[in-house]
Amino acid sequence: MDFKKWMTENTKNIDSQLNQYLPEKNAKQIDLYKSMRYSLLSSGKRIRPLLTIASYELYRQDTRLVMPFACALEMVHAYSLIHDDLPAMDNDALRRGKPTNHIVFGEAMAILAGDALLNKAFETVLNFSDSSIAPEQKLQCMQLLASASGSEGMIGGQVVDMFVNEKTQSELEYRHRLKTGALIISACQIGATLGGATHHELNLLTDFAQYLGLAFQIKDDILDCTANEEELGKPINSDQKNDKLTYVSLLGLEESENLLNEYTKKAVRSLHYFGSRGNRLNEIALYLLERKK
Amino acid sequence: MDFKKWMTENTKNIDSQLNQYLPEKNAKQIDLYKSMRYSLLSSGKRIRPLLTIASYELYRQDTRLVMPFACALEMVHAYSLIHDDLPAMDNDALRRGKPTNHIVFGEAMAILAGDALLNKAFETVLNFSDSSIAPEQKLQCMQLLASASGSEGMIGGQVVDMFVNEKTQSELEYRHRLKTGALIISACQIGATLGGATHHELNLLTDFAQYLGLAFQIKDDILDCTANEEELGKPINSDQKNDKLTYVSLLGLEESENLLNEYTKKAVRSLHYFGSRGNRLNEIALYLLERKK
Repeated sequence: MDFKKWMTENTKNIDSQLNQYLPEKNAKQIDLYKSMRYSLLSSGKRIRPLLTIASYELYRQDTRLVMPFACALEMVHAYSLIHDDLPAMDNDALRRGKPTNHIVFGEAMAILAGDALLNKAFETVLNFSDSSIAPEQKLQCMQLLASASGSEGMIGGQVVDMFVNEKTQSELEYRHRLKTGALIISACQIGATLGGATHHELNLLTDFAQYLGLAFQIKDDILDCTANEEELGKPINSDQKNDKLTYVSLLGLEESENLLNEYTKKAVRSLHYFGSRGNRLNEIALYLLERKK
Repeated sequence: MDFKKWMTENTKNIDSQLNQYLPEKNAKQIDLYKSMRYSLLSSGKRIRPLLTIASYELYRQDTRLVMPFACALEMVHAYSLIHDDLPAMDNDALRRGKPTNHIVFGEAMAILAGDALLNKAFETVLNFSDSSIAPEQKLQCMQLLASASGSEGMIGGQVVDMFVNEKTQSELEYRHRLKTGALIISACQIGATLGGATHHELNLLTDFAQYLGLAFQIKDDILDCTANEEELGKPINSDQKNDKLTYVSLLGLEESENLLNEYTKKAVRSLHYFGSRGNRLNEIALYLLERKK
């Protein structure tokens, strides 16, 4: 299957699963579900679940088994965006071309919808029961998810983003490794673990995801300077406005493009061991390199 | 062991475990740990972990095994208090006799510390490994925790608290069943599940916890009207100020005291099956009935 078709089909599948995991219930807390669904079901790139699926497909093809984990990663990502956009944090009004969650539902509901989406990520995996997945394997994947999203992972990265005044590239990369890198790495690790990867293969995929995560962030920084707001679906030059260190402000545009290419190459090189089986992950890396938003 | 001694020893044990699960790390995100520890290690009643331990002790005595779950429940409780106190929610400045988390650490850090504590609850249980606990049992207990703290449990209750204008006792009890009841029920269920309870026994303990949770809430409403702020460690008459329906505003003080006694009796009656083994849970119910804060 060609990459575009693979991505379209899997994105559709992910969206349909997310929709099922989070039905609009006719309960007293219906507005909570509306708020959760507003952010979760918006038109995101679904990079994390796609990476989980592609990593799993290195080994097996029945993606039904990997879906709850792939969707849990997207729920954690969605909750982090809701909370990051809050007035007390980045105070952003636009996200994926739409008003941010707190603009539509108010600050209290946005905080609760974020909390509920993090919680729902764990519920989704815990409520999924299939005899093909051993309980030990499920626990191992949950541990990867929980540690990637916690205080030594994504949340820790947001703390650094908010409170540390960075000066150097190594400080900048520390933030990105935690804030976006940890979850991207766990996306690949979880898919491969469910597929049955060896220890050595997990290490290679971790290398791949680590470089991919950094490349992803450099591309974000470049787009923040070069894209227009309509294309990007969120405010441009936001890093500059918020006085945040970026690859572009640190290295300039040309050097950032070079580093983006270098990290993408390194990511792709980590896949050599897998031969043609690694093509899908390779294609994802190149798609992220070329993306316009 | 007499009840006072049991409670003192176990509270000490819980606090020492919480302290170990959440060390003050020397990392870039050190202020996050300070903020998390500030709320988690403050002088709470530790009701939820004590219920988990007492429910487990119906069956077994080596509480080491139940500790990570008991502490996870306290982490979920602590995170919910931090987020409930936020300016966008109840906007409270005092909690357990100290300034609330956002007053000390600012709103952004308080949101992140809450997120991190919820995440940490799952991490704590997932990182605990002991051959005496079967993976299936661990998953079952995590499922109880996740569903009690989620959109159909505690978070759902906070949504009702914030957004539903209640008029009747049944609406009031719907809120309490979700907001405080669900977590209290899961505290007992998790302890008993780890101990090896039968289905029938789990049902009895669920009844016990359900009545206990409602009694707990009535007592809270009564104390909000009758205690002084110094004793209570948080603002008094806060429900009246926030125009929230309470048992006292709905039924009056005397009728609320009657209902408190009735629910406590029903809770205690649910324990009859356990005979003298149920004494500890019985004592907890009476302690909550008599408490001054």
